[in-house]
Amino acid sequence: MRIDLITLFPEMCEMVLGTSILGKAREKGIAELQALNFRDYANNKHHSVDDTPYGGGGGMVLKPEPIFAAVEDLLHKVYTDPETGRTVSGEPHTAPSGRPPRIILMCPQGRRYNQAIAEELAQESHLIFICGHYEGYDERIREHLVTDELSIGDYVLTGGELAALTVVDSVVRLQPGALGNETSAVTDSFSTGLLEYPHYTRPPEFRGWKVPDMLLSGHHANIEQWRREQALRRTLERRPDLLEQAELTDKDLRMLERIKAETGLS
Amino acid sequence: MRIDLITLFPEMCEMVLGTSILGKAREKGIAELQALNFRDYANNKHHSVDDTPYGGGGGMVLKPEPIFAAVEDLLHKVYTDPETGRTVSGEPHTAPSGRPPRIILMCPQGRRYNQAIAEELAQESHLIFICGHYEGYDERIREHLVTDELSIGDYVLTGGELAALTVVDSVVRLQPGALGNETSAVTDSFSTGLLEYPHYTRPPEFRGWKVPDMLLSGHHANIEQWRREQALRRTLERRPDLLEQAELTDKDLRMLERIKAETGLS
Repeated sequence: MRIDLITLFPEMCEMVLGTSILGKAREKGIAELQALNFRDYANNKHHSVDDTPYGGGGGMVLKPEPIFAAVEDLLHKVYTDPETGRTVSGEPHTAPSGRPPRIILMCPQGRRYNQAIAEELAQESHLIFICGHYEGYDERIREHLVTDELSIGDYVLTGGELAALTVVDSVVRLQPGALGNETSAVTDSFSTGLLEYPHYTRPPEFRGWKVPDMLLSGHHANIEQWRREQALRRTLERRPDLLEQAELTDKDLRMLERIKAETGLS
Repeated sequence: MRIDLITLFPEMCEMVLGTSILGKAREKGIAELQALNFRDYANNKHHSVDDTPYGGGGGMVLKPEPIFAAVEDLLHKVYTDPETGRTVSGEPHTAPSGRPPRIILMCPQGRRYNQAIAEELAQESHLIFICGHYEGYDERIREHLVTDELSIGDYVLTGGELAALTVVDSVVRLQPGALGNETSAVTDSFSTGLLEYPHYTRPPEFRGWKVPDMLLSGHHANIEQWRREQALRRTLERRPDLLEQAELTDKDLRMLERIKAETGLS
């Protein structure tokens, strides 16, 4: 898959895109990840990309032209055959897969991002993220350019870069081969609908705090059951809202009833 | 305020901490921002910081020792007078303000981060973020070292760095003087309890799409009312859950009733 970030801070984005799992996915050819500076598309001599808001008030608003121009130039470069000048698929701005790219604006007003959306985006062939200042995008960008508005949570950031990089990280790790351990992506929190059970590793005792005997027992069936119970318990304690959506077996439901009786939680 | 990140990717974190508003807050002395590699505290010859989980299963688990050692060394350095060897405030690990540092683990099981928690953390004098692999922290870190567990949203990331940096960005921008325009931090989404109204800037017409006449009218009272109505409308359309918590005047409530009647939304 291909992912582009349209940003005023391409060096910072490139650093993140080159580190850890993202950097490895890039090296292995699993994901083509790039950052593009939309200031290069400002059509004025001062290269300004923002201006004061119509109607007054504090803060600055990102102008429409540089962002439209940056996205359109990118689309043209990606989907036009450099030799013939024709678009790759015969249709403008359509990926070879036949799916148009998703053009995503990161903003607090957007759809609340979650693991289901991560799995949906992981199926796409091309994502373009517009990372501006949260303080204000000209509304015409939202109305006439983007296909999706996403918010990573109910808090305000100074820019869209960390939000976009967060989405990129969560999407790229779902690509086959991106994680070293193939089981990792399916067993963690949210993928199963429950929070994770507690993990322990060496040493078996650290400052007097011991690993639970069960995990040292070698009885795999019992360990599985203990872990499932711990995951149910932790989800009940911390995020009972998740239990409504989780896929629970009859055995899980009986276990949950027992935990509720023991803990007094409901 | 002081913020430390305990991470395996300090260069990447430093790059983000040095960019845009965070970089400026650092330069202006508003926030002391640092990243520390906990691999430097691994007490084994291979400098390994993780190990296989007790009880079997895929993935790796972060060992307790390097993370405890990194945090404790940091606390010692920050709170001990280098000349006398005594702790700064007479109590170990207590900031001069008398408030102990918050030691925060970023993980999907944590309390869901939001703007209210951002405002709470912005009052602290010292935050320490532990950024490990989401796949697994040894449970003893959670039980015996951290004071807070936070989650930035219901999605899985490959590491805690982007999550911690997101929190850092949202907290630092609330510090007095961090944003160029002092009004910015109080007028944006969530701070008022509503999503933001639409913003427009020059040009007044772009590709045939015009700025609403109202914003060009110069009637400030009417513009204020239009913006309030737009904010109410957008919040009703996209995030009606926020209306329950928002502080609404009688006039807002009447406006909201009218919008509901016009749009058919409830």
